[in-house]
Amino acid sequence: MVKVENSKNIALSDSIINLDHGDPTAYEEYWRKMGDRCTVTIRGWDLMSYFSDVNNLCWFLEPELAEAIKELHGAVGNAATEDRYIVVGTGSTQLCQAAVHALSSLAGSHPVSVVAAAPFYSTYVEETTYVRSGMYKWEGDAWGFDKKGPYIELVTSPNNPDGTIRETVVNRPEDDEGKVIHDFAYYWPHYTPITRRQDHDIMLFTFSKITGHAGSRIGWALVKDKEVAKKMVEYIIVNSIGVSKESQIRAAKILKVLKENCESESDNFFEYGREIMRNRWEKLREVVKESDVFALPKYPEAYCNFFGKTLESYPAFAWLGTKEETDLVSDLRRQKVMSRAGERCGSDKKHVRVSMLSREDVFNVFLERLANMKAH
Amino acid sequence: MVKVENSKNIALSDSIINLDHGDPTAYEEYWRKMGDRCTVTIRGWDLMSYFSDVNNLCWFLEPELAEAIKELHGAVGNAATEDRYIVVGTGSTQLCQAAVHALSSLAGSHPVSVVAAAPFYSTYVEETTYVRSGMYKWEGDAWGFDKKGPYIELVTSPNNPDGTIRETVVNRPEDDEGKVIHDFAYYWPHYTPITRRQDHDIMLFTFSKITGHAGSRIGWALVKDKEVAKKMVEYIIVNSIGVSKESQIRAAKILKVLKENCESESDNFFEYGREIMRNRWEKLREVVKESDVFALPKYPEAYCNFFGKTLESYPAFAWLGTKEETDLVSDLRRQKVMSRAGERCGSDKKHVRVSMLSREDVFNVFLERLANMKAH
Repeated sequence: MVKVENSKNIALSDSIINLDHGDPTAYEEYWRKMGDRCTVTIRGWDLMSYFSDVNNLCWFLEPELAEAIKELHGAVGNAATEDRYIVVGTGSTQLCQAAVHALSSLAGSHPVSVVAAAPFYSTYVEETTYVRSGMYKWEGDAWGFDKKGPYIELVTSPNNPDGTIRETVVNRPEDDEGKVIHDFAYYWPHYTPITRRQDHDIMLFTFSKITGHAGSRIGWALVKDKEVAKKMVEYIIVNSIGVSKESQIRAAKILKVLKENCESESDNFFEYGREIMRNRWEKLREVVKESDVFALPKYPEAYCNFFGKTLESYPAFAWLGTKEETDLVSDLRRQKVMSRAGERCGSDKKHVRVSMLSREDVFNVFLERLANMKAH
Repeated sequence: MVKVENSKNIALSDSIINLDHGDPTAYEEYWRKMGDRCTVTIRGWDLMSYFSDVNNLCWFLEPELAEAIKELHGAVGNAATEDRYIVVGTGSTQLCQAAVHALSSLAGSHPVSVVAAAPFYSTYVEETTYVRSGMYKWEGDAWGFDKKGPYIELVTSPNNPDGTIRETVVNRPEDDEGKVIHDFAYYWPHYTPITRRQDHDIMLFTFSKITGHAGSRIGWALVKDKEVAKKMVEYIIVNSIGVSKESQIRAAKILKVLKENCESESDNFFEYGREIMRNRWEKLREVVKESDVFALPKYPEAYCNFFGKTLESYPAFAWLGTKEETDLVSDLRRQKVMSRAGERCGSDKKHVRVSMLSREDVFNVFLERLANMKAH
C-alpha cells in the first residue's frame, strides 16, 4: 500500500474538497518566500482614469504590463511577441470570447461554427452558448467536424482537461474560412517541456495558471492581425470598458519578478512549480497504480528549451479514468471529492477532470480518499 | 463677456480635448489630499484564489467590499440594502449586461424587448446589440413603446445624458411581463439632491462615478430577487470568472474613507465634489448665457436628505443643445472638442453630451473654445 501522508488539517478530514475548479492555490508558499519583492502599494489618487495609453490600439493596457509580458515570453521562449498586438483581458475567459466575437464579426456569413477537439475545456461550451449569439454557434467536437462555411477551432495545448499536446484537427487548406484560437494557458515550463516558440495568429495566456494569481483576473492575447486585435478591443470596451488597472499593475510587478527569477539558481519559480507538480503527479500515479480501478494518461518526454534537458509533463489537471462501468464524478462525490464530469468535456462518464493545483493539504486528502475507493 | 480662466497648460492650448467619455478625473486632487488614508498595500501571496466567500451566493465578492457598500448607502441614504443580494461586477457595464441576461433568461418568451426613454445612455445600445443575442432585442426609445410580450426598461436617474430625474415610462400594471433595471450611477449627493431612499428590484451603482476611480472597473448591483441575483452571478462567472480582487479591496478601502468623511466638517467628499460641479456648472451656464446659440436644461431644486437643505442639480454630463440647424458634434469637433452625438443617445444632431468630470485645465479649455464659437 502506498503511503499517503495524513492531512494535518483536522477540519479537512471530513469536509467536501473541491477539485472541480482549477483554483491554483498551490504556489502561495513561493510568493510568501519572495517577501516584499512582489508587494504593490497603490495610493488613493493612482490609476483613476479609464485610459492607460491613448496611443496604443489597446488603450486600457498598462504599458508596464505590456513590457513585463514581452520580457517574460522572451525569457521563457514559449511565444513570439514581435509584430503583435497585446490585448489585455479580464482573464483569458474574457479574451477567448473577445476573439470568437472578433473573428465572427469579420467572417463572411453567420453563424460561424466554433469547435474544439474532445475532450475539451468544458467552459468553452458555456462561453459560446450562454448569450445565444447569432454570430457564432458551438458545434462541439472538432474531430469529424465537416460543416461547410466559416469556422473557428479552439486549440488548447497542453490540453485542458487531458494534458496532451494539441494541433489543429480541422484542416481545410483549400479555403480561407477556418480560423484558429490557440489557448496556451498551460504552455509554461512547470507543466510541460517548452519545445518551440509558438507564433500563431491568436495566442491566449492567463496570469492565473502561470503564477497562481487567479483572483486578479488578468489574461492577455498576442494577436498578429490588426483588424482582429481592434475588434477584440471593441468587444472588451463594450463588455467591461477595459480591465482593472490595479490587477494590471500587480500582474506587471509579479511577472517582472518571475522573469528575473528565471535566471536565479535558488528562486526559479518554474523550477519550484515543476517540483510541486512532479511530486503530486508521482504520488497520484502511485495511488492509481495500487488501485485496480483507475487510469491516467501517459505523456511522452520531450526536450525543454527552457530547462535545457529532456523532461516529463505534469499537467495542471489530472484526467482520471476508471476501468469500470460507472459514473466516476458521482463515485468521487460520494467520497466528498468534487471533480468535473468527463461528459461536460465532450467525453464520457468514465472520466473526470481533477485539479492538481489545490493547497497541499487538500491534495493529500484527495489522495487518501482515492486510495480508499474500492472496486465495485 | 464672461471671464474664462486661461488654461495654464500650454500643451493643451492647441490639442484635441476629449469630453466624449465621462473620464472622471475631476476628483484626483481630493484623493491626493487624503494622503495615506486610502493607500492599499497588497503582498505577493494575497488574493490568489478565485473565491472570496464560498458561503455567499456571489462567491467572488470580497466581504469587506460588501460591508463598505452597505455602510456607504446607509450613511448617504440613497438606497436600501437590507434583504438584498449584492452582486459585484467589472464596472456597472458588466452588471447591466448581467441583469439584462438574467431577466431575459427568466422570461417566458424571446427575444425580450429592451427599451430606455430617449435621450438615453448611448452605451445601452451597444451593450444590448453587440453579441446579437437571441434572448433580448434593443427596441430603442421607451416613449411610445407598445410591443407585446416581455420587456425590460432601463431607467437611469439622474439620467445620462441629460441629468433629469427619471421614473419608468412604460407602465403595464395589467401583466407581469415588464421588468425594470434602475441605473443609479449618478444618484449621489454631489450630482443631485438625495430625495428618497431608493428600494427598487435591481439597482446598479458604479465606483467610477462616485469617487472618480474609473480605472478600477468596480460596480455593484443591489438585487431583491434571489433567482435574478443567481442568474447575474452565473453570467459574470461565464463572462469573466468573477471580478478583480485587487480592485475590490481598493474600492472597499476608499469607500470606507468616503463614508467616514461623510461626517467630517472639512473633508466631506460630497461637499468637495458638489463644489467642483457647482463651480463648473455656473461657469458653463455663464458661457451659454453669453452666447446666442447654446442651451442647457434647467433642473428643479429639491430638498436633499443628505445635506439637509434644498439644493440644485449639477449633473456629471452637460446636455448641450444648439438653437441653430446644425450638426453640433461636428461644430465642436472643428473646435477640437470631442463630445458624444445626441443621435447616438436617441436624440438629434442639435444635442451633444459633454463630460463635466475632466481635469480642471481641460474643462477650462472647453469653456474657452465654447465661448469662441460664433453663430453660423
